[in-house]
Amino acid sequence: MPDSRIPSGDPPSDQSVPKVVVSRLSLYLRELQRLQASGQQTISSGQLGALLGFSDAQVRKDLGFFGQFGYPGVGYRCDELIHAMRDILGTNHRWPVVMVGAGNLGQALLGYRGFGRQNFTIEAAFDADPAKVGGTVQGLVIRHIDDLPRVVREKGIRLGMIVVPAERAQEVADRLVAAGIEGIVNFAPVTLALPPHVQTVAVDLAIELEQLSFAVTNKLAKAVAEPPPAEPGSG
Amino acid sequence: MPDSRIPSGDPPSDQSVPKVVVSRLSLYLRELQRLQASGQQTISSGQLGALLGFSDAQVRKDLGFFGQFGYPGVGYRCDELIHAMRDILGTNHRWPVVMVGAGNLGQALLGYRGFGRQNFTIEAAFDADPAKVGGTVQGLVIRHIDDLPRVVREKGIRLGMIVVPAERAQEVADRLVAAGIEGIVNFAPVTLALPPHVQTVAVDLAIELEQLSFAVTNKLAKAVAEPPPAEPGSG
Repeated sequence: MPDSRIPSGDPPSDQSVPKVVVSRLSLYLRELQRLQASGQQTISSGQLGALLGFSDAQVRKDLGFFGQFGYPGVGYRCDELIHAMRDILGTNHRWPVVMVGAGNLGQALLGYRGFGRQNFTIEAAFDADPAKVGGTVQGLVIRHIDDLPRVVREKGIRLGMIVVPAERAQEVADRLVAAGIEGIVNFAPVTLALPPHVQTVAVDLAIELEQLSFAVTNKLAKAVAEPPPAEPGSG
Repeated sequence: MPDSRIPSGDPPSDQSVPKVVVSRLSLYLRELQRLQASGQQTISSGQLGALLGFSDAQVRKDLGFFGQFGYPGVGYRCDELIHAMRDILGTNHRWPVVMVGAGNLGQALLGYRGFGRQNFTIEAAFDADPAKVGGTVQGLVIRHIDDLPRVVREKGIRLGMIVVPAERAQEVADRLVAAGIEGIVNFAPVTLALPPHVQTVAVDLAIELEQLSFAVTNKLAKAVAEPPPAEPGSG
Protein backbone atom coordinates (compact mmCIF):
# COMPACT_ATOMS: atom_id res chain seq x y z
CA MET A 1 0.00 0.00 0.00
CA PRO A 2 2.48 2.62 -1.06
CA ASP A 3 -0.15 5.39 -1.08
CA SER A 4 -0.82 5.11 2.63
CA ARG A 5 2.81 5.42 3.60
CA ILE A 6 4.31 8.60 4.91
CA PRO A 7 6.45 10.08 2.15
CA SER A 8 10.04 10.34 3.22
CA GLY A 9 11.83 11.58 0.13
CA ASP A 10 13.58 9.71 -2.64
CA PRO A 11 15.76 7.02 -1.16
CA PRO A 12 19.33 7.31 -2.46
CA SER A 13 21.16 4.14 -3.48
CA ASP A 14 22.76 1.99 -0.78
CA GLN A 15 26.19 3.07 -1.99
CA SER A 16 25.65 6.56 -0.56
CA VAL A 17 24.27 5.65 2.86
CA PRO A 18 26.60 7.11 5.49
CA LYS A 19 28.10 4.60 7.93
CA VAL A 20 26.69 6.52 10.88
CA VAL A 21 23.17 6.00 9.51
CA VAL A 22 23.74 2.25 9.24
CA SER A 23 24.97 2.24 12.88
CA ARG A 24 21.80 4.00 13.96
CA LEU A 25 19.77 1.41 12.01
CA SER A 26 21.17 -1.25 14.31
CA LEU A 27 20.14 0.82 17.32
CA TYR A 28 16.61 1.27 15.95
CA LEU A 29 16.38 -2.47 15.34
CA ARG A 30 17.63 -3.35 18.81
CA GLU A 31 15.10 -0.98 20.39
CA LEU A 32 12.24 -2.25 18.18
CA GLN A 33 13.05 -5.84 19.13
CA ARG A 34 12.95 -4.87 22.79
CA LEU A 35 9.60 -3.12 22.33
CA GLN A 36 8.16 -6.04 20.40
CA ALA A 37 9.28 -8.46 23.11
CA SER A 38 7.38 -6.32 25.62
CA GLY A 39 4.23 -6.49 23.50
CA GLN A 40 4.24 -3.07 21.81
CA GLN A 41 2.90 -3.22 18.24
CA THR A 42 3.34 0.30 16.83
CA ILE A 43 5.60 3.26 17.53
CA SER A 44 6.01 6.80 16.21
CA SER A 45 9.30 8.26 15.01
CA GLY A 46 9.18 10.62 17.98
CA GLN A 47 8.81 7.81 20.51
CA LEU A 48 11.51 5.70 18.87
CA GLY A 49 13.86 8.67 18.76
CA ALA A 50 13.18 9.63 22.37
CA LEU A 51 14.21 6.15 23.56
CA LEU A 52 17.57 6.60 21.86
CA GLY A 53 18.17 10.31 22.36
CA PHE A 54 17.51 11.25 18.71
CA SER A 55 14.95 13.68 17.28
CA ASP A 56 11.94 12.41 15.31
CA ALA A 57 13.37 14.20 12.26
CA GLN A 58 16.58 12.19 12.63
CA VAL A 59 14.66 8.91 12.75
CA ARG A 60 12.59 9.78 9.66
CA LYS A 61 15.65 11.01 7.76
CA ASP A 62 17.65 7.85 8.59
CA LEU A 63 14.84 5.49 7.57
CA GLY A 64 14.27 7.61 4.46
CA PHE A 65 17.60 6.37 3.12
CA PHE A 66 16.10 2.92 2.71
CA GLY A 67 12.50 3.49 1.64
CA GLN A 68 9.13 4.52 2.95
CA PHE A 69 7.90 2.98 6.16
CA GLY A 70 5.09 3.79 8.56
CA TYR A 71 1.43 4.75 8.25
CA PRO A 72 -0.26 8.11 8.84
CA GLY A 73 -1.85 8.26 12.27
CA VAL A 74 -0.33 4.89 13.21
CA GLY A 75 3.42 5.31 12.99
CA TYR A 76 5.58 2.27 12.33
CA ARG A 77 4.39 -1.28 12.85
CA CYS A 78 7.13 -2.88 14.96
CA ASP A 79 7.05 -6.31 13.30
CA GLU A 80 7.04 -4.81 9.80
CA LEU A 81 9.87 -2.38 10.54
CA ILE A 82 11.93 -5.09 12.24
CA HIS A 83 11.57 -7.31 9.19
CA ALA A 84 12.46 -4.45 6.82
CA MET A 85 15.51 -3.46 8.85
CA ARG A 86 16.77 -7.02 9.06
CA ASP A 87 16.35 -7.21 5.29
CA ILE A 88 18.44 -4.07 4.91
CA LEU A 89 21.08 -5.25 7.39
CA GLY A 90 21.08 -8.73 5.87
CA THR A 91 20.16 -10.52 9.10
CA ASN A 92 16.86 -12.15 8.17
CA HIS A 93 18.96 -15.22 7.45
CA ARG A 94 21.47 -16.87 9.76
CA TRP A 95 25.16 -16.06 9.28
CA PRO A 96 27.68 -18.72 10.22
CA VAL A 97 30.92 -17.06 11.38
CA VAL A 98 34.48 -18.33 11.87
CA MET A 99 36.61 -17.02 14.71
CA VAL A 100 40.40 -17.07 14.80
CA GLY A 101 42.05 -16.73 18.21
CA ALA A 102 40.87 -18.68 21.24
CA GLY A 103 42.54 -16.66 23.98
CA ASN A 104 40.67 -14.94 26.84
CA LEU A 105 38.66 -12.61 24.63
CA GLY A 106 37.96 -15.23 21.96
CA GLN A 107 36.71 -17.67 24.57
CA ALA A 108 34.44 -14.98 26.02
CA LEU A 109 33.05 -14.25 22.55
CA LEU A 110 32.26 -17.96 22.09
CA GLY A 111 29.96 -17.65 25.09
CA TYR A 112 28.39 -14.34 24.08
CA ARG A 113 24.65 -14.91 23.63
CA GLY A 114 24.02 -11.58 21.90
CA PHE A 115 25.36 -12.96 18.60
CA GLY A 116 22.67 -15.63 18.39
CA ARG A 117 19.91 -13.13 19.08
CA GLN A 118 20.92 -11.20 15.95
CA ASN A 119 21.25 -14.38 13.85
CA PHE A 120 25.02 -14.91 13.99
CA THR A 121 26.50 -18.27 15.02
CA ILE A 122 30.18 -18.88 15.61
CA GLU A 123 30.36 -22.07 13.60
CA ALA A 124 34.04 -22.85 14.08
CA ALA A 125 36.94 -21.47 16.13
CA PHE A 126 40.63 -21.72 15.27
CA ASP A 127 43.97 -21.20 16.93
CA ALA A 128 47.59 -21.97 16.08
CA ASP A 129 48.58 -22.80 19.68
CA PRO A 130 48.92 -26.60 20.12
CA ALA A 131 47.91 -26.12 23.76
CA LYS A 132 44.53 -24.78 22.65
CA VAL A 133 43.83 -26.87 19.53
CA GLY A 134 41.60 -29.86 20.32
CA GLY A 135 40.28 -28.31 23.52
CA THR A 136 36.56 -27.56 23.92
CA VAL A 137 35.25 -24.07 24.74
CA GLN A 138 31.50 -23.44 25.12
CA GLY A 139 30.84 -26.77 23.41
CA LEU A 140 32.99 -25.96 20.38
CA VAL A 141 36.22 -27.83 19.61
CA ILE A 142 39.08 -25.43 18.81
CA ARG A 143 40.51 -26.38 15.42
CA HIS A 144 43.96 -25.82 13.98
CA ILE A 145 44.22 -22.74 11.77
CA ASP A 146 45.37 -24.98 8.89
CA ASP A 147 41.81 -26.40 8.74
CA LEU A 148 40.38 -22.93 8.02
CA PRO A 149 40.11 -23.13 4.20
CA ARG A 150 38.35 -26.50 4.26
CA VAL A 151 35.85 -25.48 6.97
CA VAL A 152 35.05 -22.16 5.28
CA ARG A 153 34.48 -23.93 1.97
CA GLU A 154 32.45 -26.82 3.35
CA LYS A 155 30.18 -24.65 5.48
CA GLY A 156 29.90 -21.79 3.00
CA ILE A 157 31.07 -19.24 5.57
CA ARG A 158 31.46 -15.58 4.53
CA LEU A 159 32.21 -13.75 7.81
CA GLY A 160 35.18 -14.02 10.17
CA MET A 161 36.35 -12.55 13.47
CA ILE A 162 39.99 -11.90 14.30
CA VAL A 163 40.74 -12.16 18.02
CA VAL A 164 44.52 -12.58 17.98
CA PRO A 165 47.30 -10.21 19.16
CA ALA A 166 48.08 -7.23 16.90
CA GLU A 167 51.32 -8.71 15.59
CA ARG A 168 49.53 -11.80 14.22
CA ALA A 169 46.40 -10.10 12.89
CA GLN A 170 47.55 -9.31 9.33
CA GLU A 171 48.72 -12.87 8.73
CA VAL A 172 45.39 -14.21 9.99
CA ALA A 173 43.52 -11.70 7.83
CA ASP A 174 45.48 -12.89 4.78
CA ARG A 175 44.51 -16.48 5.58
CA LEU A 176 40.84 -15.55 5.97
CA VAL A 177 40.85 -13.69 2.66
CA ALA A 178 42.61 -16.58 0.92
CA ALA A 179 39.94 -18.92 2.31
CA GLY A 180 37.24 -16.79 0.69
CA ILE A 181 35.97 -14.77 3.68
CA GLU A 182 34.22 -11.56 2.53
CA GLY A 183 33.86 -9.66 5.80
CA ILE A 184 36.02 -9.41 8.93
CA VAL A 185 35.40 -8.06 12.42
CA ASN A 186 38.87 -7.21 13.66
CA PHE A 187 39.37 -7.10 17.44
CA ALA A 188 43.16 -6.75 17.11
CA PRO A 189 44.42 -3.20 17.73
CA VAL A 190 45.94 -2.73 14.28
CA THR A 191 44.73 -1.50 10.89
CA LEU A 192 44.57 -4.37 8.39
CA ALA A 193 45.52 -4.16 4.72
CA LEU A 194 42.69 -5.90 2.88
CA PRO A 195 41.67 -6.23 -0.77
CA PRO A 196 38.82 -3.88 -1.79
CA HIS A 197 36.22 -6.65 -2.02
CA VAL A 198 36.65 -7.58 1.65
CA GLN A 199 34.62 -5.55 4.15
CA THR A 200 35.84 -4.86 7.66
CA VAL A 201 34.63 -3.54 10.99
CA ALA A 202 37.20 -2.73 13.64
CA VAL A 203 36.63 -3.05 17.38
CA ASP A 204 39.53 -1.75 19.48
CA LEU A 205 38.51 -1.95 23.13
CA ALA A 206 41.22 0.46 24.29
CA ILE A 207 40.10 3.00 21.69
CA GLU A 208 36.58 2.86 23.09
CA LEU A 209 37.99 3.87 26.49
CA GLU A 210 40.13 6.52 24.81
CA GLN A 211 37.03 8.01 23.18
CA LEU A 212 35.42 8.13 26.59
CA SER A 213 38.50 9.75 28.07
CA PHE A 214 38.25 12.44 25.39
CA ALA A 215 34.57 13.03 26.13
CA VAL A 216 35.10 13.28 29.88
CA THR A 217 38.25 15.40 29.53
CA ASN A 218 36.53 17.83 27.18
CA LYS A 219 33.17 17.63 28.97
CA LEU A 220 31.35 17.29 25.68
CA ALA A 221 27.73 18.25 25.40
CA LYS A 222 25.59 15.12 25.17
CA ALA A 223 24.28 16.16 21.77
CA VAL A 224 26.78 14.74 19.32
CA ALA A 225 28.19 17.20 16.82
CA GLU A 226 27.27 16.15 13.30
CA PRO A 227 30.24 15.70 10.96
CA PRO A 228 30.96 18.52 8.51
CA PRO A 229 30.03 18.20 4.82
CA ALA A 230 32.26 15.89 2.79
CA GLU A 231 34.92 17.53 0.69
CA PRO A 232 35.56 16.18 -2.79
CA GLY A 233 38.24 13.52 -2.63
CA SER A 234 38.52 13.63 1.13
CA GLY A 235 36.97 10.21 1.69
CA MET B 1 57.86 27.85 17.08
CA PRO B 2 54.46 28.61 15.64
CA ASP B 3 55.94 30.28 12.57
CA SER B 4 57.59 27.12 11.31
CA ARG B 5 54.44 25.05 11.55
CA ILE B 6 52.30 24.23 8.58
CA PRO B 7 49.16 26.35 8.79
CA SER B 8 46.08 24.19 9.01
CA GLY B 9 43.28 26.69 9.47
CA ASP B 10 41.63 28.07 12.57
CA PRO B 11 40.96 25.28 15.00
CA PRO B 12 37.33 25.30 16.05
CA SER B 13 36.49 24.74 19.71
CA ASP B 14 36.44 21.18 21.03
CA GLN B 15 32.67 21.39 21.33
CA SER B 16 32.30 21.22 17.56
CA VAL B 17 34.70 18.36 16.79
CA PRO B 18 32.72 15.58 15.10
CA LYS B 19 32.82 12.21 16.84
CA VAL B 20 34.18 10.54 13.71
CA VAL B 21 37.23 12.84 13.80
CA VAL B 22 37.92 11.89 17.41
CA SER B 23 37.70 8.21 16.40
CA ARG B 24 40.25 8.78 13.66
CA LEU B 25 42.49 10.57 16.18
CA SER B 26 42.69 7.29 18.10
CA LEU B 27 43.66 5.49 14.90
CA TYR B 28 46.37 8.05 14.12
CA LEU B 29 47.70 7.70 17.66
CA ARG B 30 47.73 3.89 17.49
CA GLU B 31 49.60 3.98 14.18
CA LEU B 32 52.08 6.60 15.41
CA GLN B 33 52.82 4.53 18.51
CA ARG B 34 53.48 1.52 16.30
CA LEU B 35 55.79 3.56 14.06
CA GLN B 36 57.62 5.02 17.03
CA ALA B 37 58.10 1.55 18.51
CA SER B 38 59.70 0.50 15.22
CA GLY B 39 62.12 3.45 15.37
CA GLN B 40 60.51 5.88 12.90
CA GLN B 41 60.92 9.52 13.99
CA THR B 42 58.95 11.56 11.45
CA ILE B 43 56.06 10.96 9.08
CA SER B 44 54.14 12.97 6.47
CA SER B 45 50.35 13.29 6.39
CA GLY B 46 50.38 11.29 3.16
CA GLN B 47 52.31 8.39 4.69
CA LEU B 48 50.18 8.36 7.83
CA GLY B 49 47.00 8.46 5.78
CA ALA B 50 48.17 5.69 3.45
CA LEU B 51 48.73 3.34 6.40
CA LEU B 52 45.11 3.84 7.44
CA GLY B 53 43.42 4.18 4.06
CA PHE B 54 42.80 7.93 4.37
CA SER B 55 43.94 10.75 2.06
CA ASP B 56 46.61 13.22 3.18
CA ALA B 57 43.94 15.95 3.02
CA GLN B 58 41.82 13.97 5.47
CA VAL B 59 44.72 13.67 7.92
CA ARG B 60 45.52 17.38 7.75
CA LYS B 61 41.87 18.36 8.09
CA ASP B 62 41.36 16.08 11.10
CA LEU B 63 44.46 17.35 12.92
CA GLY B 64 43.47 20.89 12.01
CA PHE B 65 40.55 20.63 14.41
CA PHE B 66 43.01 20.60 17.28
CA GLY B 67 45.81 22.95 16.29
CA GLN B 68 48.84 23.20 14.06
CA PHE B 69 51.27 20.30 13.99
CA GLY B 70 54.12 19.33 11.70
CA TYR B 71 57.04 21.11 10.06
CA PRO B 72 57.55 22.08 6.39
CA GLY B 73 59.78 19.56 4.64
CA VAL B 74 59.81 17.28 7.69
CA GLY B 75 56.19 16.34 8.34
CA TYR B 76 55.13 15.37 11.82
CA ARG B 77 57.55 14.35 14.55
CA CYS B 78 56.14 11.10 15.90
CA ASP B 79 56.98 11.71 19.56
CA GLU B 80 55.62 15.26 19.48
CA LEU B 81 52.41 14.29 17.72
CA ILE B 82 51.87 11.31 20.04
CA HIS B 83 52.24 13.58 23.06
CA ALA B 84 49.89 16.18 21.56
CA MET B 85 47.28 13.58 20.66
CA ARG B 86 47.39 12.01 24.11
CA ASP B 87 46.91 15.48 25.54
CA ILE B 88 43.84 15.94 23.36
CA LEU B 89 42.46 12.49 24.18
CA GLY B 90 43.29 12.92 27.85
CA THR B 91 45.54 9.85 28.08
CA ASN B 92 48.87 11.38 29.06
CA HIS B 93 47.85 10.48 32.60
CA ARG B 94 46.70 7.10 33.87
CA TRP B 95 42.95 6.48 34.21
CA PRO B 96 41.80 4.05 36.89
CA VAL B 97 38.57 2.34 35.78
CA VAL B 98 35.91 0.34 37.60
CA MET B 99 34.23 -2.61 35.92
CA VAL B 100 30.83 -4.01 36.86
CA GLY B 101 30.06 -7.56 35.74
CA ALA B 102 32.54 -10.40 36.11
CA GLY B 103 31.01 -12.90 33.70
CA ASN B 104 32.80 -14.36 30.68
CA LEU B 105 33.28 -11.06 28.87
CA GLY B 106 34.15 -9.11 32.02
CA GLN B 107 36.78 -11.69 32.97
CA ALA B 108 38.27 -11.47 29.47
CA LEU B 109 38.43 -7.67 29.73
CA LEU B 110 40.31 -7.99 33.03
CA GLY B 111 43.04 -9.80 31.11
CA TYR B 112 43.06 -7.47 28.12
CA ARG B 113 46.53 -5.93 27.88
CA GLY B 114 45.52 -3.27 25.37
CA PHE B 115 43.98 -1.13 28.12
CA GLY B 116 47.29 -0.74 29.94
CA ARG B 117 49.12 0.28 26.78
CA GLN B 118 46.75 3.25 26.40
CA ASN B 119 47.03 4.18 30.11
CA PHE B 120 43.84 2.60 31.43
CA THR B 121 43.88 0.27 34.47
CA ILE B 122 40.91 -1.70 35.70
CA GLU B 123 41.36 -0.82 39.34
CA ALA B 124 38.41 -2.72 40.76
CA ALA B 125 35.81 -5.18 39.49
CA PHE B 126 32.35 -5.75 40.93
CA ASP B 127 29.54 -8.25 40.70
CA ALA B 128 26.32 -8.95 42.59
CA ASP B 129 26.59 -12.74 42.27
CA PRO B 130 27.68 -14.27 45.61
CA ALA B 131 29.34 -17.08 43.62
CA LYS B 132 31.68 -14.55 41.98
CA VAL B 133 32.27 -12.06 44.82
CA GLY B 134 35.50 -12.81 46.66
CA GLY B 135 36.95 -14.79 43.78
CA THR B 136 40.16 -13.69 42.08
CA VAL B 137 40.36 -13.04 38.32
CA GLN B 138 43.61 -11.90 36.71
CA GLY B 139 44.94 -11.02 40.14
CA LEU B 140 41.98 -8.83 41.04
CA VAL B 141 39.51 -9.76 43.78
CA ILE B 142 35.89 -9.39 42.62
CA ARG B 143 34.09 -7.10 45.05
CA HIS B 144 30.42 -6.83 45.91
CA ILE B 145 28.59 -4.12 44.01
CA ASP B 146 27.62 -2.50 47.32
CA ASP B 147 31.28 -1.52 47.78
CA LEU B 148 31.20 0.53 44.57
CA PRO B 149 30.58 4.01 46.07
CA ARG B 150 33.37 3.66 48.64
CA VAL B 151 35.95 2.37 46.13
CA VAL B 152 35.10 5.05 43.55
CA ARG B 153 35.44 7.76 46.20
CA GLU B 154 38.60 6.43 47.82
CA LYS B 155 40.43 5.87 44.54
CA GLY B 156 39.10 8.97 42.78
CA ILE B 157 37.78 6.93 39.84
CA ARG B 158 35.90 8.72 37.04
CA LEU B 159 35.40 5.99 34.42
CA GLY B 160 33.39 2.77 34.52
CA MET B 161 32.62 -0.21 32.29
CA ILE B 162 29.30 -2.03 32.29
CA VAL B 163 29.62 -5.71 31.38
CA VAL B 164 26.33 -7.11 32.69
CA PRO B 165 23.28 -8.48 30.81
CA ALA B 166 20.98 -5.92 29.12
CA GLU B 167 18.25 -6.25 31.73
CA ARG B 168 20.61 -5.23 34.57
CA ALA B 169 22.53 -2.48 32.75
CA GLN B 170 20.34 0.53 33.61
CA GLU B 171 20.35 -0.30 37.32
CA VAL B 172 24.14 -0.63 37.24
CA ALA B 173 24.44 2.63 35.31
CA ASP B 174 22.34 4.39 37.96
CA ARG B 175 24.64 3.04 40.66
CA LEU B 176 27.75 4.19 38.78
CA VAL B 177 26.29 7.67 38.31
CA ALA B 178 25.25 7.86 41.97
CA ALA B 179 28.82 6.89 42.92
CA GLY B 180 30.15 9.85 40.93
CA ILE B 181 31.33 8.14 37.73
CA GLU B 182 31.54 10.63 34.83
CA GLY B 183 32.01 8.32 31.85
CA ILE B 184 30.73 4.83 31.03
CA VAL B 185 31.68 2.26 28.39
CA ASN B 186 28.55 0.18 28.03
CA PHE B 187 28.98 -3.37 26.69
CA ALA B 188 25.35 -4.27 27.41
CA PRO B 189 23.12 -4.32 24.31
CA VAL B 190 20.76 -1.61 25.50
CA THR B 191 20.60 2.19 25.33
CA LEU B 192 21.12 3.73 28.77
CA ALA B 193 19.27 6.74 30.14
CA LEU B 194 22.00 8.91 31.68
CA PRO B 195 22.14 12.46 33.03
CA PRO B 196 23.65 14.99 30.59
CA HIS B 197 26.91 15.38 32.53
CA VAL B 198 27.74 11.65 32.15
CA GLN B 199 29.49 10.65 28.92
CA THR B 200 29.01 7.27 27.34
CA VAL B 201 30.48 5.03 24.66
CA ALA B 202 28.51 1.97 23.60
CA VAL B 203 30.06 -1.29 22.40
CA ASP B 204 27.51 -3.83 21.17
CA LEU B 205 29.38 -6.82 19.79
CA ALA B 206 26.38 -8.15 17.86
CA ILE B 207 25.86 -4.74 16.24
CA GLU B 208 29.45 -4.84 14.99
CA LEU B 209 28.66 -8.11 13.20
CA GLU B 210 25.39 -6.62 11.95
CA GLN B 211 27.29 -3.69 10.44
CA LEU B 212 29.56 -6.17 8.70
CA SER B 213 26.56 -8.13 7.46
CA PHE B 214 25.19 -4.91 5.95
CA ALA B 215 28.49 -4.14 4.25
CA VAL B 216 28.86 -7.65 2.81
CA THR B 217 25.19 -7.84 1.80
CA ASN B 218 25.32 -4.50 0.05
CA LYS B 219 28.86 -5.02 -1.27
CA LEU B 220 29.88 -1.54 -0.21
CA ALA B 221 32.78 0.18 -1.86
CA LYS B 222 35.76 0.32 0.50
CA ALA B 223 35.72 4.10 0.46
CA VAL B 224 33.36 5.03 3.26
CA ALA B 225 30.60 7.43 2.32
CA GLU B 226 31.01 10.66 4.24
CA PRO B 227 27.97 11.70 6.27
CA PRO B 228 25.74 14.41 4.80
CA PRO B 229 25.86 17.98 6.08
CA ALA B 230 24.26 18.52 9.46
CA GLU B 231 20.77 19.94 9.40
CA PRO B 232 19.78 22.46 12.05
CA GLY B 233 18.27 20.64 14.98
CA SER B 234 18.94 17.20 13.55
CA GLY B 235 21.57 16.27 16.10
